[in-house]
Amino acid sequence: MSVIGPQSRLTQVRGTVPNMSVIDASSVRHNDSMIESPLSTPRLDMQLIADRRELHRVAEPGWCEVFTASKVVAALRGLGWEVRWGADVVRADARLGLPPQQELDFFYERALELGADPETAGALRNGFTGVVGCLKGTAPGPTIAFRFDLDANHGGESRSEEHLPARDGYASTCANTHHNCGHDGHAAMGLALARSLTQWRDRIAGEVRLIFQPAEEGLRGARAMVAAGVLDDVDRFIGCHLGVQARQVGEIISGYRDILGSVKLDVAFAGTGAHAAVSPQEGRNALLAACVAAQNLMAIPRHGGGDTRVNVGMLSGGESRNTIPSTARLALELRSESTEALQFLKEAAHRVIEGAAAMHGVSFQVDLAGEACSASSDRSLAQLVGAAAQSMSRVHTVRDDVSFKGSDDAAEMMRRVQDRGGQAVYFGIGSKLGAVHHNPRFDFDEESLSIGTELLERIARLLLTPLPEAGHL
Amino acid sequence: MSVIGPQSRLTQVRGTVPNMSVIDASSVRHNDSMIESPLSTPRLDMQLIADRRELHRVAEPGWCEVFTASKVVAALRGLGWEVRWGADVVRADARLGLPPQQELDFFYERALELGADPETAGALRNGFTGVVGCLKGTAPGPTIAFRFDLDANHGGESRSEEHLPARDGYASTCANTHHNCGHDGHAAMGLALARSLTQWRDRIAGEVRLIFQPAEEGLRGARAMVAAGVLDDVDRFIGCHLGVQARQVGEIISGYRDILGSVKLDVAFAGTGAHAAVSPQEGRNALLAACVAAQNLMAIPRHGGGDTRVNVGMLSGGESRNTIPSTARLALELRSESTEALQFLKEAAHRVIEGAAAMHGVSFQVDLAGEACSASSDRSLAQLVGAAAQSMSRVHTVRDDVSFKGSDDAAEMMRRVQDRGGQAVYFGIGSKLGAVHHNPRFDFDEESLSIGTELLERIARLLLTPLPEAGHL
Amino acid sequence: MSVIGPQSRLTQVRGTVPNMSVIDASSVRHNDSMIESPLSTPRLDMQLIADRRELHRVAEPGWCEVFTASKVVAALRGLGWEVRWGADVVRADARLGLPPQQELDFFYERALELGADPETAGALRNGFTGVVGCLKGTAPGPTIAFRFDLDANHGGESRSEEHLPARDGYASTCANTHHNCGHDGHAAMGLALARSLTQWRDRIAGEVRLIFQPAEEGLRGARAMVAAGVLDDVDRFIGCHLGVQARQVGEIISGYRDILGSVKLDVAFAGTGAHAAVSPQEGRNALLAACVAAQNLMAIPRHGGGDTRVNVGMLSGGESRNTIPSTARLALELRSESTEALQFLKEAAHRVIEGAAAMHGVSFQVDLAGEACSASSDRSLAQLVGAAAQSMSRVHTVRDDVSFKGSDDAAEMMRRVQDRGGQAVYFGIGSKLGAVHHNPRFDFDEESLSIGTELLERIARLLLTPLPEAGHL
Amino acid sequence: MSVIGPQSRLTQVRGTVPNMSVIDASSVRHNDSMIESPLSTPRLDMQLIADRRELHRVAEPGWCEVFTASKVVAALRGLGWEVRWGADVVRADARLGLPPQQELDFFYERALELGADPETAGALRNGFTGVVGCLKGTAPGPTIAFRFDLDANHGGESRSEEHLPARDGYASTCANTHHNCGHDGHAAMGLALARSLTQWRDRIAGEVRLIFQPAEEGLRGARAMVAAGVLDDVDRFIGCHLGVQARQVGEIISGYRDILGSVKLDVAFAGTGAHAAVSPQEGRNALLAACVAAQNLMAIPRHGGGDTRVNVGMLSGGESRNTIPSTARLALELRSESTEALQFLKEAAHRVIEGAAAMHGVSFQVDLAGEACSASSDRSLAQLVGAAAQSMSRVHTVRDDVSFKGSDDAAEMMRRVQDRGGQAVYFGIGSKLGAVHHNPRFDFDEESLSIGTELLERIARLLLTPLPEAGHL
Repeated sequence: MSVIGPQSRLTQVRGTVPNMSVIDASSVRHNDSMIESPLSTPRLDMQLIADRRELHRVAEPGWCEVFTASKVVAALRGLGWEVRWGADVVRADARLGLPPQQELDFFYERALELGADPETAGALRNGFTGVVGCLKGTAPGPTIAFRFDLDANHGGESRSEEHLPARDGYASTCANTHHNCGHDGHAAMGLALARSLTQWRDRIAGEVRLIFQPAEEGLRGARAMVAAGVLDDVDRFIGCHLGVQARQVGEIISGYRDILGSVKLDVAFAGTGAHAAVSPQEGRNALLAACVAAQNLMAIPRHGGGDTRVNVGMLSGGESRNTIPSTARLALELRSESTEALQFLKEAAHRVIEGAAAMHGVSFQVDLAGEACSASSDRSLAQLVGAAAQSMSRVHTVRDDVSFKGSDDAAEMMRRVQDRGGQAVYFGIGSKLGAVHHNPRFDFDEESLSIGTELLERIARLLLTPLPEAGHL
Repeated sequence: MSVIGPQSRLTQVRGTVPNMSVIDASSVRHNDSMIESPLSTPRLDMQLIADRRELHRVAEPGWCEVFTASKVVAALRGLGWEVRWGADVVRADARLGLPPQQELDFFYERALELGADPETAGALRNGFTGVVGCLKGTAPGPTIAFRFDLDANHGGESRSEEHLPARDGYASTCANTHHNCGHDGHAAMGLALARSLTQWRDRIAGEVRLIFQPAEEGLRGARAMVAAGVLDDVDRFIGCHLGVQARQVGEIISGYRDILGSVKLDVAFAGTGAHAAVSPQEGRNALLAACVAAQNLMAIPRHGGGDTRVNVGMLSGGESRNTIPSTARLALELRSESTEALQFLKEAAHRVIEGAAAMHGVSFQVDLAGEACSASSDRSLAQLVGAAAQSMSRVHTVRDDVSFKGSDDAAEMMRRVQDRGGQAVYFGIGSKLGAVHHNPRFDFDEESLSIGTELLERIARLLLTPLPEAGHL
Repeated sequence: MSVIGPQSRLTQVRGTVPNMSVIDASSVRHNDSMIESPLSTPRLDMQLIADRRELHRVAEPGWCEVFTASKVVAALRGLGWEVRWGADVVRADARLGLPPQQELDFFYERALELGADPETAGALRNGFTGVVGCLKGTAPGPTIAFRFDLDANHGGESRSEEHLPARDGYASTCANTHHNCGHDGHAAMGLALARSLTQWRDRIAGEVRLIFQPAEEGLRGARAMVAAGVLDDVDRFIGCHLGVQARQVGEIISGYRDILGSVKLDVAFAGTGAHAAVSPQEGRNALLAACVAAQNLMAIPRHGGGDTRVNVGMLSGGESRNTIPSTARLALELRSESTEALQFLKEAAHRVIEGAAAMHGVSFQVDLAGEACSASSDRSLAQLVGAAAQSMSRVHTVRDDVSFKGSDDAAEMMRRVQDRGGQAVYFGIGSKLGAVHHNPRFDFDEESLSIGTELLERIARLLLTPLPEAGHL
Repeated sequence: MSVIGPQSRLTQVRGTVPNMSVIDASSVRHNDSMIESPLSTPRLDMQLIADRRELHRVAEPGWCEVFTASKVVAALRGLGWEVRWGADVVRADARLGLPPQQELDFFYERALELGADPETAGALRNGFTGVVGCLKGTAPGPTIAFRFDLDANHGGESRSEEHLPARDGYASTCANTHHNCGHDGHAAMGLALARSLTQWRDRIAGEVRLIFQPAEEGLRGARAMVAAGVLDDVDRFIGCHLGVQARQVGEIISGYRDILGSVKLDVAFAGTGAHAAVSPQEGRNALLAACVAAQNLMAIPRHGGGDTRVNVGMLSGGESRNTIPSTARLALELRSESTEALQFLKEAAHRVIEGAAAMHGVSFQVDLAGEACSASSDRSLAQLVGAAAQSMSRVHTVRDDVSFKGSDDAAEMMRRVQDRGGQAVYFGIGSKLGAVHHNPRFDFDEESLSIGTELLERIARLLLTPLPEAGHL
């Protein structure tokens, strides 16, 4: 799910990255609840958990996932997959909400310190941290894409003993960066799926494409991979998320509907300072413009064609108490389940911002910080996911027709596939959580990773093996 | 002083005008406190009071003073003055805030019913209700202008027995119209001054010009007479007001300073209605634009170069509870003692209105409903007024350097004279009041009219007679 | 459907009511499209149209339906029904949004002039204009209530030749009052249903109750009839509306869902006036409080548990341009399909209003002008309506599961019946419209009345006749 | 003059303080324009400049002036004066706007590193940085207080070669702290005055009291020294400022009038966060409350009794784009020349803040960050200053009756002296400036220090020597 947190403060952080060694799978404390999967071997599960914990510890924010993506590249290449990464799969001019160069540099250098392959890292740096792995089967068949997101969020991680990553020593080593939305688990499942699929490659009819996407948080990354064409020839798209509307291990939501379309805007107002006592009339009050904008953005009318959301999540402005504020900024998001209503919100928001600026004689700039359309899972593909889940002993509950209630830029990929005649599903993997997504104490039960991986395998098998095999499910 | 009241409701009023006969001077009940003026004869005073009461009873609002102006024309012509009126002295395209045609027609017809001369009334109707009388002396000398305003206000008049006009039968005969600012007194003094000056015409060196101005309320009329050129060759300008900052009979303010400049704007917003439940997004909310404008107008910054005032005095909008409001209107005034600050207010107000409209996607229209600049009396001319007042036995207090604290479009005339090298004064005539200006119980002590007339005569004599005479003051 | 229009201006209207004779059924011009109903005779239809046209011409607004209700009383009594009316069926202290006494008096007197029975009218006057007719069958059975609303709206009616009521001479005879929501048709169908049911009274098992409700517009009347207990022992409730989401003759919506709950509030702010130039600090600006409230009411957050609506439909304040406004009023409505969300809106609105008043140091008063809960038709009863409709040759389309998208205080009656274990349906009768509801050119096709009446009869028959008969449907 | 700048970022700064040696007077580059004062010796002037440059380099912000005040203590004690400092002259509970403990500690430790006497520094630390020096003459006479402020501002200093302190190596050594209001010069003049007065101590009749005040910026320090009683027995109070409304060397303003009273408020709003898409209704939006407050604070009405100023100089709130903001803060200042109007502003501001919080269901806290009353110089004492200035050859212009247009908490001291029957003056010392006060390039001409010191001496002599001496001026 997507949120943009407060600005990272790299200067405070830069010196604090410890000498971090990569976590080895053999060091993973075994989770008591872990049950053998009929398809995945325990060995794979051990690697799954080790991968997840390493990624959790590294915790790179959006567009900065240089170590994470390098690790994915190395793993897929090691398995013999065709792998593309960097500018090949991330279109430069479609990237949204890039962080400051200083942040990009910091995480690139950190990735090298952590042992990333310099050549790969060089191609990933500066916001090209997407990877696409391809495994072609031995017979013709459909192209099936699985998508996993890679990025952590800005935000501190709990150091409480009740927070497992802290207790067991794999909490984020980077101040103010935390995998608090489970993407570490998503990426680890992607790697586990790759290992599994490799084993039965000769039975695959068609092509498997694993898409590792940067910068889901803030809805910034999907569009650049779509623009690079990586979804263009995909027949079926499968995405998944941990713990959304499903809080029990063994619970599966077979396909979300109503992933909300969302637009994230950064707005800056620039006016003119002036001494607030001597010559207030010479000022042009950018802060007042922002306050007026905030109020009127919240007052954008409801829409008869779909529920909507508006939030001015952050606003700041002004230089000193006795100066007419010459600058102000606000961070806005708009959402709707309806494309038409989202378009309405965008137009109304622009009107409000422009009017507020004009009203106070200030200039303004609106930057698109993130965007994703709305989407819903195709019912038939969701039924296939549901069937696969029902077949698993570790799954006790399968729910369909559940509203996502949030946004995810997987929707951009779903929409692309659907618009070209394919089908798409975004399903949910239940897990108990340490706290809600984006909370410092967010954590999930690692058994859900094992369940999720098995379900992904089963879905792949249903879609990629000739019919007789499917019957054995 | 200037205010615009609620819209008159002529339709309710039309049938109620009684068959009104002109008040005859002989019927005036004598005011016990009335003292003989050394210059004016009691006979004149009797006429002064009769005139005032007749005008009070007639009570015509701005641009509708057809009977009042007709009476002035007849009186001045009867005295042998050169008289100009109508479009000759009121420039059509400089008139501000004309009432609806229906109202203009109503008062024209009423004036005819009341006995106005049809030919004169024909030239005055439709908002040309200014009159200029001219008396040339026998020797060369300066041109001295005296200005009197003619209009009543919208607003009901008290019918209480404690309200003298009600008790004594000369209250307004026109519903919702009331001489509640003393202009009836001003005009009556103007006629009395004309009678007096006529008597010593042969001793006058120079020219006297009496300007009877319509529509002072709302600051609507002065500009049209200035634009017609009636002030262009004036050397000294004298205006006066009853009861402003001076509440005792026998008190004189020799010359106000800081008559506030003011701009009156009528703003209309037009949006699009829509069903508030079914399709709110189709509406463009004119009322919300007006509310935003009102708040931000009040938040126009203070000015380091002069005290300012902003007021949104009235606002209304919307058609029904369940419709997105498609129309809204507001009435605004801006004031400052400083020309620069008033200009700043105008620009800021336009920015706010335009921005509020843009913000909510509605159109807007701004109409100038009234305007007058700021002005202050020239000190030397105020000293002459003060000296004249000091010489009167009925005057016990003379104050100078008093701030007017309100607006009056006499300022437009003052400014024109001052800009062309002349001098101007706006002085105050003290009076006990029944209630503050613009109140239903507003009334003044008629003795102040007698004192005011004598002071006007003395000022005229000081300015218009050769020096030896002036020494006798 | 419900709306509150601008205040009527009775004083302008009072003199204009023509000497109106009751329309006789024999004078009705026959509608070409009228088809014989298998159940209703043409004779009944002629009366139906005559009744509708008479009510259209009379056009009494909410709580003022003295003539209309008198006519209903007379008709039902004439048919031999048990009839109750006035305070017996309208609980005084549960009435919302009563008009001014002046308006109540005007319409009472007008009803007498139009020939209403004085005794009946006396019991109905002053806002007790509800009627309940009761027909008991010859066998035991359920109690079935049919509800019809009686009131017209404030608002002018088109006089265009294209507007049938104008062309054919049955347009409203009361200025600013217009049956622009079809309640004239609803009431006429109620009378037609009464006539029809009377004919097969001896075959009825159970009790029919016809509820003629005042003041639906503004959601003001239902609550008072519910509070009087008229729904308390009802097993099935049937309501209907013309032309909502169904614009073809022969189209039926078998039962609306999501009739929006709604609260209508009138808010008054009272502050302190002051001269805007001399002493603005002494004012307490009620208009500014209202503007702030309006803006922040529109900014009440969306609700995750149900779509919501907020509208400040009308606002006005201020006395004159140069006075700090001491009074302001606004008319607000809140809506939601969710009871919880509607409760949230109410609490949030009160917070906003109270905060806005506190902010500007003014007092406030909130009056409940109307209220109705949300409701949805019971599916099984809607299916019965659908089945009845499907059986009619004149019905070509039956739709179910249609959102009402507006509010109707029939919901209060539905909820009461449902809360006590009964079932309720609110169905739609399609009609081409002259223009949308509440428009000056609103009109419907009178054939829809005939279809609607037949459907009501069939529903009654299904619910009130012993099973064997029902099988013949 | 007073301003509060952006928060210091001590953590970024802490490591950057260089090993700074105290500037020695002998190293001062002689200013070509420096002219010998008839009273001060050049030697004194050399020390004056050296002191100013050292204080400029040290640049301690309000309540942190440990090194600066230590230096003053040492200098006065070295001259044999009675000296009090710390809690003795700064009342703890009357201090406003103390910085965070971290900042207090940082500057205390830095002062020790810079060589401050540990015992003195210990008494000054933690916000007790006031000093009062007392010199009693040999004859009885009045008590005359001179006041000098000590604090620098937060804000960066220019490093341009055109900025003399940068070019000549005495720019601030503390990042984000800059003597950009001339208080370094004020304090240096105070020390020079002490040296001069010491020399003619035996001719003094009465007592001289030099008050070195912390934390003038933000109007935070004066009140605590007044509350400690240091002004209670003062007969004449003299304060001065460099470069305010006087931009030429040799120009003196003999006594400002209308130092604006001011109140500085820090306002915090606390609400409830909630997911902006899933459950916005559970949030209580602190940022929206702050925005509404900001807008309505700016709309506090003008006051008829005195010009006013309102500024919301800084505002920030919110945690992330997709969360309902749970916190927001704003920094506000109110000003007026009128005590009554300032009181009105305070009450109105509290109403607005409370109303805005109530409106959005959030709590709030208002902290007084600074406050000073308005004051004007006594005319007779200003005339004495003017006479003293006129007698100086280096003074070419003396102006009186100049409005200060800003605020200075010297007003608190003036008011205390005036309220107890004494007289007070606040005069201006002209100087060309590098840029306006509080600008990174602010600097003044050091010759103005020499002129100012001489004028202070002459004022002291006029007030403190028996009359015969005064005649020799």
